Amino acid sequence: MESWSPEEFTERLRAVGAKAYHDRHPFHRRMHAGELSPAELRLWAANRYYYQKHIPIKDALILSRCPLPEIRRQWVTRLADHDGSGDDLGGIERWIRLAAAIGVSRAELDDDRHLLPGVRFAVDAYVELARSRPWVEGVAASLTELFAPALMSERLAALERHYPWIDRAGLVYFRERIVRAPRDASQALSIVIAHSRTHDAQARAVDALRLKCDLLWAQLDALEHGAVVEV
Amino acid sequence: MESWSPEEFTERLRAVGAKAYHDRHPFHRRMHAGELSPAELRLWAANRYYYQKHIPIKDALILSRCPLPEIRRQWVTRLADHDGSGDDLGGIERWIRLAAAIGVSRAELDDDRHLLPGVRFAVDAYVELARSRPWVEGVAASLTELFAPALMSERLAALERHYPWIDRAGLVYFRERIVRAPRDASQALSIVIAHSRTHDAQARAVDALRLKCDLLWAQLDALEHGAVVEV
Repeated sequence: MESWSPEEFTERLRAVGAKAYHDRHPFHRRMHAGELSPAELRLWAANRYYYQKHIPIKDALILSRCPLPEIRRQWVTRLADHDGSGDDLGGIERWIRLAAAIGVSRAELDDDRHLLPGVRFAVDAYVELARSRPWVEGVAASLTELFAPALMSERLAALERHYPWIDRAGLVYFRERIVRAPRDASQALSIVIAHSRTHDAQARAVDALRLKCDLLWAQLDALEHGAVVEV
Repeated sequence: MESWSPEEFTERLRAVGAKAYHDRHPFHRRMHAGELSPAELRLWAANRYYYQKHIPIKDALILSRCPLPEIRRQWVTRLADHDGSGDDLGGIERWIRLAAAIGVSRAELDDDRHLLPGVRFAVDAYVELARSRPWVEGVAASLTELFAPALMSERLAALERHYPWIDRAGLVYFRERIVRAPRDASQALSIVIAHSRTHDAQARAVDALRLKCDLLWAQLDALEHGAVVEV
């Protein structure tokens, strides 16, 4: 089968987000409508931290699978984005501050005491994707960042409007990501297009992105159920 | 069993180098005495490239196994050292230039056509060490850099003296490593001491460094034999 043109390939990748991105999950809908209790928001912040702290792990696995120094040169900057460098705290530390503003302490994050099994399974599956599948598919899975800025803008506005008890200084994580996500997504999209040279490789990239959407969705399923059980 | 003091632990690590580092291998002895033929030097440069190009892979694996952002922040700079960043070519590209000065083209490096099986096995075993053993042991294995500056200084002088047909511009790889290795070794030693908290962990770190020395030694065994067969 002939490979898709860059335009059609891009359309197919974007279509995954329109269909399966977690912006439409009921838990996010309730968050953005101001309907989450403080306990539900705390559960979300604590569980999402498990995802955050594994992002540099999966990025390091992508690096370890990529034999091209020029790609690694681009991709390695993501580790600094999350772990920090120089004066930049990094995304993990910014998430810790967000969690503090919501009422979850660093100690509670460190020992995973609030971690729901479904969130653990989904995040571990994402790390396993990066470990076991070709590096281009790991990069393709990161393309949920194509869809993230709209969601994060909506979330930032919703948190400010509906949850005024959250210290705004804690929201800097989202302000940073809204700026960085489009840059990261554009870089990743160029890489995926350039290095998926057959129809089969393109289809596997689309599949990896779909799997990533499912992994994000499953985390919210666990939270939606966990919120009912625990809160 | 009680753990060693930092001083005794450091001594035990250094003792591995005194006993097993590849500076005393017959192939290096012949290199430094000016006894290698151009063909032998070419075989060495081509095979050593397989090791060079896997260093960022094993460093990415160490990163992927390390759950501590503050350690990853330090370790990630090694990827830039090898892959380059900004105007810095990086160690891999500098090795490619060294190989060119010795008479091995980029195309010959890219397809591993001169790669000896023993070199492949040893390098792959090093990558596997980083993949399968705790991250601190991967860091400990890098401590051959404690012993590298003396060897590289001797090698640089020997290459300039005995092999005047090698363009000196090609030797910049060694000039860079002589500067960076002590910094890297000091950083890695601090990490290994701080994160090997039991006698057992310390013994495993020493073992990892010994294994790394064996992996370097085995590469030269293959070259010494390969040189006899192929040249």
